Amino acid sequence: MKIGVLGTGEVGRRLAARLAGLGHDVMLGSRTADNPVAAEWAREHGGHHGAFAEAAAHGELVVNATGGLVALDVLTAAGTANLDGKVVMDVSNPLDFSQGFPPRLVVPEAGSVAEQLQQAFPRARVVKTLNTMNNTLMTDPARVSGPHNVFVCGDDEAAKTEVADLLKSFGWPEQQILDLGGLSAARSVEPVVLLWVTLSSVLHTADFNFAILR
Amino acid sequence: MKIGVLGTGEVGRRLAARLAGLGHDVMLGSRTADNPVAAEWAREHGGHHGAFAEAAAHGELVVNATGGLVALDVLTAAGTANLDGKVVMDVSNPLDFSQGFPPRLVVPEAGSVAEQLQQAFPRARVVKTLNTMNNTLMTDPARVSGPHNVFVCGDDEAAKTEVADLLKSFGWPEQQILDLGGLSAARSVEPVVLLWVTLSSVLHTADFNFAILR
Repeated sequence: MKIGVLGTGEVGRRLAARLAGLGHDVMLGSRTADNPVAAEWAREHGGHHGAFAEAAAHGELVVNATGGLVALDVLTAAGTANLDGKVVMDVSNPLDFSQGFPPRLVVPEAGSVAEQLQQAFPRARVVKTLNTMNNTLMTDPARVSGPHNVFVCGDDEAAKTEVADLLKSFGWPEQQILDLGGLSAARSVEPVVLLWVTLSSVLHTADFNFAILR
Repeated sequence: MKIGVLGTGEVGRRLAARLAGLGHDVMLGSRTADNPVAAEWAREHGGHHGAFAEAAAHGELVVNATGGLVALDVLTAAGTANLDGKVVMDVSNPLDFSQGFPPRLVVPEAGSVAEQLQQAFPRARVVKTLNTMNNTLMTDPARVSGPHNVFVCGDDEAAKTEVADLLKSFGWPEQQILDLGGLSAARSVEPVVLLWVTLSSVLHTADFNFAILR
């Protein structure tokens, strides 16, 4: 599958590498077409790199791996036409590190970043997922044992199924993928990143995850 | 131990009943001294009831089981002198149901309700805990199996130990009590209630809890 991954940070590169490793045709997108980090990634993983709009145009599915505070700008740069009808897998968190640590959560007017993106690009099919864990765990869930969960929410059922299939290909067992319903659930799952940050400080590791036990 | 429980809602009555059942001398506090719900609770559980100030004066330890949006008013009514030097176990959540379901989280200027209370009553020893689960589970953790967690945070180590001891007496195994550090962690743990609300809708039960798996 052709996939565009927007964002050349650790999260974007990790997801793009895993997707390329699984045989997908991946383009890593950044603000400028000549980003050296993206170029190095492309050389190392046999993928492509380009500006946000090129990566979005390339993808049949688009991953937003940019920060939640810039995501709307990034998708605007990617271009409405390049997102039309496509699944947009949003893994971002709206954290403001400008005041230092711990970061502050910024809640967009729309209620969440995912809903903000969906409102701005109504023909994109936004699915929120993976934002509640470290990027190493996203693509290798077996790093943590036990029935820990990845949350998924979105208004388009077929888009959620497509995202769940990608998660399964990463190694997520179906019973650990927890469907939270419509995209408005993003406003309850984005703030969880604050607890993740606190826990990573207290536990001195990023290799942990939330599990919902019944 | 003499304990004052502020708040006659389901959470307050549940905690007060459990504490009374464990042999503590409990007074349930409400806005008015003649609250019939509190009077009935006192008859049923062999406890006392009174106004917020009476319940706080009665307690060597005080539980805030009122809503996060009114907690500051309630503790103001309880009175600074009646809280001086005492552990204040805050289980509240700042949820606004005025716009219907799902509720909206209101983040106080101080960062969290617990910090707001601590700032207003600097000689109280505020500990945040139990706000991430249903009240039935608070006092009977065995309703959910597996290593699910209760979070504790606060700036006073001895106060946290006292609260942890109460939690153990409720049936919480020590290894499930997760110390998140200082009271500022409350700002990362209070928003989790939003995910709790979403999950309770999706799972059609309140008998679940968060576990941190490593």
